[in-house]
Amino acid sequence: MIILGIDPGVATIGFGVIHAERQQNTLIQYGVITTPAGLPLATRLRQIADDMNELLYQFKPDEMAVEELFFTNNITTGIAVAHGRGVILLTAEQAGVPIFEYTPMQVKQAVAGYGKAEKRQVMDMTRRLLRMKQIPRPDDAADALAIAICHSRAATSLLNTERVFDASRYSTR
Amino acid sequence: MIILGIDPGVATIGFGVIHAERQQNTLIQYGVITTPAGLPLATRLRQIADDMNELLYQFKPDEMAVEELFFTNNITTGIAVAHGRGVILLTAEQAGVPIFEYTPMQVKQAVAGYGKAEKRQVMDMTRRLLRMKQIPRPDDAADALAIAICHSRAATSLLNTERVFDASRYSTR
Repeated sequence: MIILGIDPGVATIGFGVIHAERQQNTLIQYGVITTPAGLPLATRLRQIADDMNELLYQFKPDEMAVEELFFTNNITTGIAVAHGRGVILLTAEQAGVPIFEYTPMQVKQAVAGYGKAEKRQVMDMTRRLLRMKQIPRPDDAADALAIAICHSRAATSLLNTERVFDASRYSTR
Repeated sequence: MIILGIDPGVATIGFGVIHAERQQNTLIQYGVITTPAGLPLATRLRQIADDMNELLYQFKPDEMAVEELFFTNNITTGIAVAHGRGVILLTAEQAGVPIFEYTPMQVKQAVAGYGKAEKRQVMDMTRRLLRMKQIPRPDDAADALAIAICHSRAATSLLNTERVFDASRYSTR
C-alpha cells in the first residue's frame, strides 16, 4: 500500500510517500511544497491545490495521512495553516483518496514509541525505519514521513487501531 | 458589476449576490450553503467546493468579497471555519474571480456608518439598501449581503478605498 503523509501548512507543506507492508516500510519520495509569502493567500492556496493534485497523480497513494492542527503558539499562523489544510483535504477527497488524521502525540507514539518523544528522536527513528543514511530535510518533509509511518502502523496492524492509539495509554505520562 | 458576498464557515456559509452601481445596489439572490455535521470534514469541504463552483457558474460574479476571520470565542470552531474559508478562496481563485477581504468592523462601517454598530442595525440597513420588505434570513445570508454591500461601496467609490476604510478613523471610538 502506498501512503502519502502530509505535514500541513501554507508557506511550507511537507510530504512523504512510502510503500507500507506489514513488516517493512520503504521510502518512495519526500519533499516540500512551498509558496511565496508575498502572494495573496488565495493564490498560494491555488498553488497548493495544483501541487497536491500533481503529487496525487504522480504517486497515486492508496491512503493519505495528515497531522491534526493544534493551536498552542501563534493563532495567526494557525489560521493560515487551517486554510491550507482545508485545501489539502479537499484535493485528496476530490481524488477519492481516503484520509486519516493523527495528533502529533500519536505520531510520536507510533514512530518513537513514546508520545512525548523529542523531535530529534522521532526524526532519527524515521530515518532508521526507512533505512536512510541521513535524517531527511527539511524538517517538514521528515515530519510528513513520520506521519506516513504512523499511519502505516495503524493501517497494516492486525490490532484494532483504537487500541494502538488509545489516548488513555499515554495521556497520564 | 455583480458582487458575490460570502460569510465563510463549514456548517453554514452565507452567500449574497448583488448588482452594484455607483448610485444603487440591486439584490439578485441570497441564501446559504449547508453541510451536515455528521460527515467527515473532507467530505463537507468537497460539498462546499461543489456548491461554490455552482454559485460562481450560475451568477458569474465580477468580484467576490469575503469576511476576514477573527478568533475571539471558540478556537475549535475557528479552525473548522478556516478550513472552509480556504476552500472558498480556492474556488474563486480557480474561477479567476478577484477576491476582496473585509473585517467585520469594515462591514459595519460601510453598511451602518459605524464600525461598532449593533448586528440588528446592520441587518436593517442591509434590508433598506437593497429595498427588501423583510430582513433576509438566515443571519448568515444577511451577513453575506452586508459584505457584498461593503465591497460595493469600495469598488464603486471614486474615493481611495484606503481612505474609506482607514482603520484609524474608527478605531478610537
